[in-house]
Amino acid sequence: MASSSASSGAGAGEPGPGASDLLRTVPRGIAQVDLQTNLWTGLVFIVALFVGGWQFGVFGLLGTVVATLTALALGVSWRDNVSLGLEGFCGTLIGVSLVLYLNVRWMTVVLVIFGAIAGSVLTAALNVLLKPYRLPTLTAPFCVITTVMVVGGPSFARVWDRHAGTAPPSAADPGTALGWGELWQGTFSGVGQVFFQNQWYVGVIFLIGLCVAGWRTGLVALVSSLVGLLTGWVLGAQAADLGAGLYGYNSVLTGIALCGTFVSVTRLSALYALVGVVAAAGLTAGIGNLFAVVGGHTLTWPFVLVTWVFLAAVPMYARIARA
Amino acid sequence: MASSSASSGAGAGEPGPGASDLLRTVPRGIAQVDLQTNLWTGLVFIVALFVGGWQFGVFGLLGTVVATLTALALGVSWRDNVSLGLEGFCGTLIGVSLVLYLNVRWMTVVLVIFGAIAGSVLTAALNVLLKPYRLPTLTAPFCVITTVMVVGGPSFARVWDRHAGTAPPSAADPGTALGWGELWQGTFSGVGQVFFQNQWYVGVIFLIGLCVAGWRTGLVALVSSLVGLLTGWVLGAQAADLGAGLYGYNSVLTGIALCGTFVSVTRLSALYALVGVVAAAGLTAGIGNLFAVVGGHTLTWPFVLVTWVFLAAVPMYARIARA
Amino acid sequence: MASSSASSGAGAGEPGPGASDLLRTVPRGIAQVDLQTNLWTGLVFIVALFVGGWQFGVFGLLGTVVATLTALALGVSWRDNVSLGLEGFCGTLIGVSLVLYLNVRWMTVVLVIFGAIAGSVLTAALNVLLKPYRLPTLTAPFCVITTVMVVGGPSFARVWDRHAGTAPPSAADPGTALGWGELWQGTFSGVGQVFFQNQWYVGVIFLIGLCVAGWRTGLVALVSSLVGLLTGWVLGAQAADLGAGLYGYNSVLTGIALCGTFVSVTRLSALYALVGVVAAAGLTAGIGNLFAVVGGHTLTWPFVLVTWVFLAAVPMYARIARA
Repeated sequence: MASSSASSGAGAGEPGPGASDLLRTVPRGIAQVDLQTNLWTGLVFIVALFVGGWQFGVFGLLGTVVATLTALALGVSWRDNVSLGLEGFCGTLIGVSLVLYLNVRWMTVVLVIFGAIAGSVLTAALNVLLKPYRLPTLTAPFCVITTVMVVGGPSFARVWDRHAGTAPPSAADPGTALGWGELWQGTFSGVGQVFFQNQWYVGVIFLIGLCVAGWRTGLVALVSSLVGLLTGWVLGAQAADLGAGLYGYNSVLTGIALCGTFVSVTRLSALYALVGVVAAAGLTAGIGNLFAVVGGHTLTWPFVLVTWVFLAAVPMYARIARA
Repeated sequence: MASSSASSGAGAGEPGPGASDLLRTVPRGIAQVDLQTNLWTGLVFIVALFVGGWQFGVFGLLGTVVATLTALALGVSWRDNVSLGLEGFCGTLIGVSLVLYLNVRWMTVVLVIFGAIAGSVLTAALNVLLKPYRLPTLTAPFCVITTVMVVGGPSFARVWDRHAGTAPPSAADPGTALGWGELWQGTFSGVGQVFFQNQWYVGVIFLIGLCVAGWRTGLVALVSSLVGLLTGWVLGAQAADLGAGLYGYNSVLTGIALCGTFVSVTRLSALYALVGVVAAAGLTAGIGNLFAVVGGHTLTWPFVLVTWVFLAAVPMYARIARA
Repeated sequence: MASSSASSGAGAGEPGPGASDLLRTVPRGIAQVDLQTNLWTGLVFIVALFVGGWQFGVFGLLGTVVATLTALALGVSWRDNVSLGLEGFCGTLIGVSLVLYLNVRWMTVVLVIFGAIAGSVLTAALNVLLKPYRLPTLTAPFCVITTVMVVGGPSFARVWDRHAGTAPPSAADPGTALGWGELWQGTFSGVGQVFFQNQWYVGVIFLIGLCVAGWRTGLVALVSSLVGLLTGWVLGAQAADLGAGLYGYNSVLTGIALCGTFVSVTRLSALYALVGVVAAAGLTAGIGNLFAVVGGHTLTWPFVLVTWVFLAAVPMYARIARA
């Protein structure tokens, strides 16, 4: 059943896309990291990545393009998937995260290309597996590929002579007292940390991109980031981690997913989304501690797991509806 | 498919429950921890919890009520789920386990309330995901929520200034020679450890509660606890852990589930259940060692995993049938 | 749906198998470790196991027989499953792996018998769970049972007084410079490591068995083993581990699965299989590091995970088809 209905969506007989259609999949793919299809949102996101560092822009684009081309080469439906950017966004994050953890090197280029191909296949597999439950893949393929590569990396001499970017900010600056600067900067950084960017002004550019897609989307993202930060603060998380947006980015994505994208917005469903946003921030520590043992990272696992659970539950609820 | 058939069971148009109906969901929810719907069984279990310690009674009741109210507020079917106590039992265990691991504090109250809400959503999600396979959620939502909170806890200063109740009895009293006292006390304790109670007389009260539901249920629980303990003894487990019932409680639940609740009882299916009961005891060590690395606990994971496998397998077997 | 269609395949009303039919399930079961049904292939594999060490032959046969008899006793379909050896191969690997990790002892005999029974139930469960997606169980039941037993083992004094066979060859002989001897021996060893055999000439016997089933199968296995080894070498893996075939065996199984067994062979699908073969070798380190923390082993987890993903994805692809 899963297989027949999925294959009927595949691309046989569709007219082939032109060059400008293909080009548009790139910003759309990058916008899909935040669950958006808006072309201009994607272009603003690309600017934000380059402001964060040229390597994030270049490796993010590389991953997006390779993942999208893989899907096209294997015959994924242009209309239902590729043209919407749905085949690119995990490649974006694979590129950005691997250059962060493995540094700018030729081997990282090879790993991003291979990782984007493998992530594309995993996206297709999850699409089939989740279809009976109407669940989206979200960023799960990225989480799996990057986790596997970072955990396996130390076994390979040509992958891992330097391990970059892994100590949390609180390692250098411990303490739980939250200052005003950490509060407002952390709220903006939470929007940027979706793409692993921890500077508050890069977060502001991403927020502008979201507002281009719709002011409600931008508002939900900002409020969710603040709620995630405050959740961590109430529980007693390290202030430096809060200030870097580390408790916000999973809340941002969960808020966008549950409040407007996949669930019809009502007063009750907004409360439901709020519980999810808080859960995503709380889960950040559990996932982080779990993966720390083997050298993995939190990534967007909390967002993926919480959103899957909150979407899968909907059919049991008479008062919550899918969008 | 999963979504449509599940949503058709949701509560639109049903007459609302009265106050006494609502009250009855509390003992029923607590009885469902042991897969029972009997009101009196639940009341005896509440007595047992308070004999074990006032905090287990209070936090167990808190979790049960919050989880049940969450399900009601979101519109879960009263007739099919809530009235049977099926929305309460994971909340019970979340309450009891968190007060054991995090102590009596106001933050624990907050965490039990939030955990029971999140566990309620996870129950709904698992109901949808497992429906095509006719598998019950068992205590999986409790296992997930408590594992995540205990693993993440140390990152939060306001959650974790004291970590209670985690060293196994064998830490203070190592050795594998099993005495008579450990044998009989451990068999009763195994029944109580389902609710994290390690005194043999508390186990006896839980056993009385099970006998109220049916003498066969009580007998299956007692024999399963003994089989679990003996499995550990044959393999060479620590005697103090055996005496505390730590190898018995997953066997108790697996025995009740596979021998009478979800599988039709025949001579062959009793043997099948016996294999499951032994497997649950054996798996206790594997799961325990796995979670110990990140500060997690065995909980009822072995019961959940073994029972899922033994129930999922049934359609392949011409000689075993679902009840 | 999953349950009804699965149970219709169960064995009621089929004529019972004779003694020679039963005997044939043993070599067929052992051939199925490499996804083959050929009787003679299985007989050559048995010879290879005894050349590797009498204990591997004896414990491998024990596991195969116990697993097959369990399936028969519970009523699994003779025609669709048992007669093809599909109920035996996980038992084979449980026997071979447990005698490697736990040594030749009476307790190991007990554990292989119980493990083969539990692995048989898990095979049935996975058959039901994976049926809607047309995915085979592969060696997943073996991976689960052996992982659980090896991780839990140290808690049991009678299981674990000596832990055998776990240090990788590179522990005694570190370095990443690959010699010619390691290259050709490692390529053959990769074929034998599917059964935990690290001598190159045992790998040659297994390769002969595969060629008996079809020269194309043998060729795919040999090339996949070489590709796996070279993947490890490019990434900078330890040469001694490459020379022992540790980066080859998951590639061998993935190659056989994706190139000829479950996917129709075309030029594009051969490239698709190649990506899978490389991914299985790369994943070896990630899985190994993950399980090392709790004393587990890589086993054939990379093959299982990669092949599931690459098969599950097929319905999304207009240009790849299931065989």
